[in-house]
Amino acid sequence: MVKVAVMGHGVVGSGVVELLMKNSESITKKAGQEIEVKYILDLKEFDVPYKDKFTKDFNVILNDPEISIVAEVMGGLSPAFDFVKSLLEHGKSVVTSNKELVAAKGATLLKIAKDHNVNFFFEASVGGGIPIIRPMHLCLAANEITEVAGILNGTSNFILTKMIHDQMPFDEALKLAQQLGYAERDPSADVEGHDACRKICILASLAFGRHVYPNTVYTEGIDKLTLEDVEYADAWGGVIKLIGRAKKLDDGKLVVTVYPAFIPHHSQLANIDDVFNGVLIRGDATGDVVFYGKGAGKFPTASAVVADVIDIAKKHSTVKSLSWEDTTENIVVDYKTSPLQFYIRVATPDEATSKKEIAEIFGDSDFLSRNNEPDGEYAFVTGKMTEYELEDKLKSMSPDYKVLQKIRVLDY
Amino acid sequence: MVKVAVMGHGVVGSGVVELLMKNSESITKKAGQEIEVKYILDLKEFDVPYKDKFTKDFNVILNDPEISIVAEVMGGLSPAFDFVKSLLEHGKSVVTSNKELVAAKGATLLKIAKDHNVNFFFEASVGGGIPIIRPMHLCLAANEITEVAGILNGTSNFILTKMIHDQMPFDEALKLAQQLGYAERDPSADVEGHDACRKICILASLAFGRHVYPNTVYTEGIDKLTLEDVEYADAWGGVIKLIGRAKKLDDGKLVVTVYPAFIPHHSQLANIDDVFNGVLIRGDATGDVVFYGKGAGKFPTASAVVADVIDIAKKHSTVKSLSWEDTTENIVVDYKTSPLQFYIRVATPDEATSKKEIAEIFGDSDFLSRNNEPDGEYAFVTGKMTEYELEDKLKSMSPDYKVLQKIRVLDY
Repeated sequence: MVKVAVMGHGVVGSGVVELLMKNSESITKKAGQEIEVKYILDLKEFDVPYKDKFTKDFNVILNDPEISIVAEVMGGLSPAFDFVKSLLEHGKSVVTSNKELVAAKGATLLKIAKDHNVNFFFEASVGGGIPIIRPMHLCLAANEITEVAGILNGTSNFILTKMIHDQMPFDEALKLAQQLGYAERDPSADVEGHDACRKICILASLAFGRHVYPNTVYTEGIDKLTLEDVEYADAWGGVIKLIGRAKKLDDGKLVVTVYPAFIPHHSQLANIDDVFNGVLIRGDATGDVVFYGKGAGKFPTASAVVADVIDIAKKHSTVKSLSWEDTTENIVVDYKTSPLQFYIRVATPDEATSKKEIAEIFGDSDFLSRNNEPDGEYAFVTGKMTEYELEDKLKSMSPDYKVLQKIRVLDY
Repeated sequence: MVKVAVMGHGVVGSGVVELLMKNSESITKKAGQEIEVKYILDLKEFDVPYKDKFTKDFNVILNDPEISIVAEVMGGLSPAFDFVKSLLEHGKSVVTSNKELVAAKGATLLKIAKDHNVNFFFEASVGGGIPIIRPMHLCLAANEITEVAGILNGTSNFILTKMIHDQMPFDEALKLAQQLGYAERDPSADVEGHDACRKICILASLAFGRHVYPNTVYTEGIDKLTLEDVEYADAWGGVIKLIGRAKKLDDGKLVVTVYPAFIPHHSQLANIDDVFNGVLIRGDATGDVVFYGKGAGKFPTASAVVADVIDIAKKHSTVKSLSWEDTTENIVVDYKTSPLQFYIRVATPDEATSKKEIAEIFGDSDFLSRNNEPDGEYAFVTGKMTEYELEDKLKSMSPDYKVLQKIRVLDY
């Protein structure tokens, strides 16, 4: 019998408790022993059948020698970081769904876990119910991973799907997402890309072995996208998706970014719609492998948390290789130095010379068109260049051009 | 230092040896110790830099106490089964890419492994380089899996892709697949569905805990499909894919089948093209999770074999839960008793009454049309019924109807 504590009884926390009860028979079989929830830490009170398990005092959990595994599903950095740190130092293994915590403090907590011979697992922190952390770690062990890219934020993806398939403007789609409970009242973490940023940091750290901090990652959200851009993307032969990506360069440095991008229709990432997430891992031996599923939600996320609990319960040893090192060196290079194609939309009062001028400045460019395109609007996809080169070219355009949009083009 | 033997130096075997050498630095780091290939078993001779490692005598491997892990990548049942059995009984762990072996003898070999406290791993036996066996086992531990379905044979999928996107007839697409090395000279294992059958048996056994034998699984290949069917599928709103599926019924019994099926365009399985594989796992908590990647090929498959080797090398204990039980009871029910929709294509000389008669017999049916549809051809998709009900209805049609095609409809 393993006794566990669940810290936080919100959406995910209640899911963890319910799942452990509902599937207890098969979980016991898989873990090789029974798993019992002894404590649930929450300041609020809940009228649930298992209310005798609640405590408001973290120290009850910390100081109970019977507790060997704790699920941290409170979210946020404080007090989660201090709690998790103390638990690991007290020899308890911790599993978490808290991407903010892992992205900001992963290296620190992994080191503490290693020093105290316990596990710190975080399968649920990326991709909700999609198994991604452990497959990446275990099954791709024989590969050199060269790139990780994904649709990592379900809320943004839901909004983009509405924009693409139902021609719903951004504001309206956001409102709908809020009504359906997919977006928070303050949606900035989702639509501005910060949530996706945390997740790509976790994936990049694991893939490349050194902690990638969110503040080193260029992050742009979907809040500036319009239906015109969606229509031009379709004319180009693809869709706009919010992509978090981390790519290893030949010198070992990384390009890590989060931004909306044109993705061709035939890409495995292009057809991932609604609140679903997808992660592509490019390995030197496997080629591209894609993992797809529900990136959020009570039971998908809870199932990832419980899987981590089971994995610890059935092992008698500590997994030391699911880890990465801290680094003070900035391993993330300036994203503007990597060559890419760009989609540009401009407005100009002087139509006559525009196409010619654009062709002269940008060289080979694909001009795109859409229904009811207004006079003086030009949209085109450039050849490959660095973003610095692009900026120079944009600056060299006549001053009466107005750049309405710039979206990067990726080819997965 | 772990010393391993590789049995078989074909496509996969040479990939295993090369990968262990090429990525040795990162592999050593991940395994926590160096992994050295001590022997390669093959009757043929190869002019490779590592030719001093070859042996033709299995007993050299069996009786060398230094060898703790053996990769069996010879394929086939004989002598692979006897070799693997002896190795496990001699306390050596075995990893294999041999789906025929696992599908036919998995329960037996897993039991021997357990009895001798060693591991028998087979990540490479399904989905080539896609991590699927271990993610299913580990990360979905908290779920009750209700269904597994997938595109499991890359050769068939390549042929179907050519039929769908290039309107290439089956025979021609098969010839192309053979030219490109995707299909064997005798393509029956691929195009008649037997390879997919072995893989769905392995996935079903793991998902549901009891060995599912290939001879209990209804298996139909893609060799009877025509471009007309492909065109009607498109008119219906989808594509034809060869799907292996295993579904758990409420009474715990299983429906396990392999056949070509209509799949709607929006399905995550519909967009898996060329030689790629995809596996969908439906869990009660996660919902649908899909794994996608290269299902075959030298390095993708070798990378799965090597990942298994690494996993054994870094563990000091034996994994007993990656297993299933043998059973003499037939747990697979008659597939004709599950209700499905069906696509039917018929020819009739008597056009006038046809549509009416079809509607009377089959009830609500969607009639499909295609370009240059000849007189007297009718294609339609029925409502849900069991295949027995369908057969009765087909029998009750006027004798001048000729049933040209019957394809099942699945909704993933």
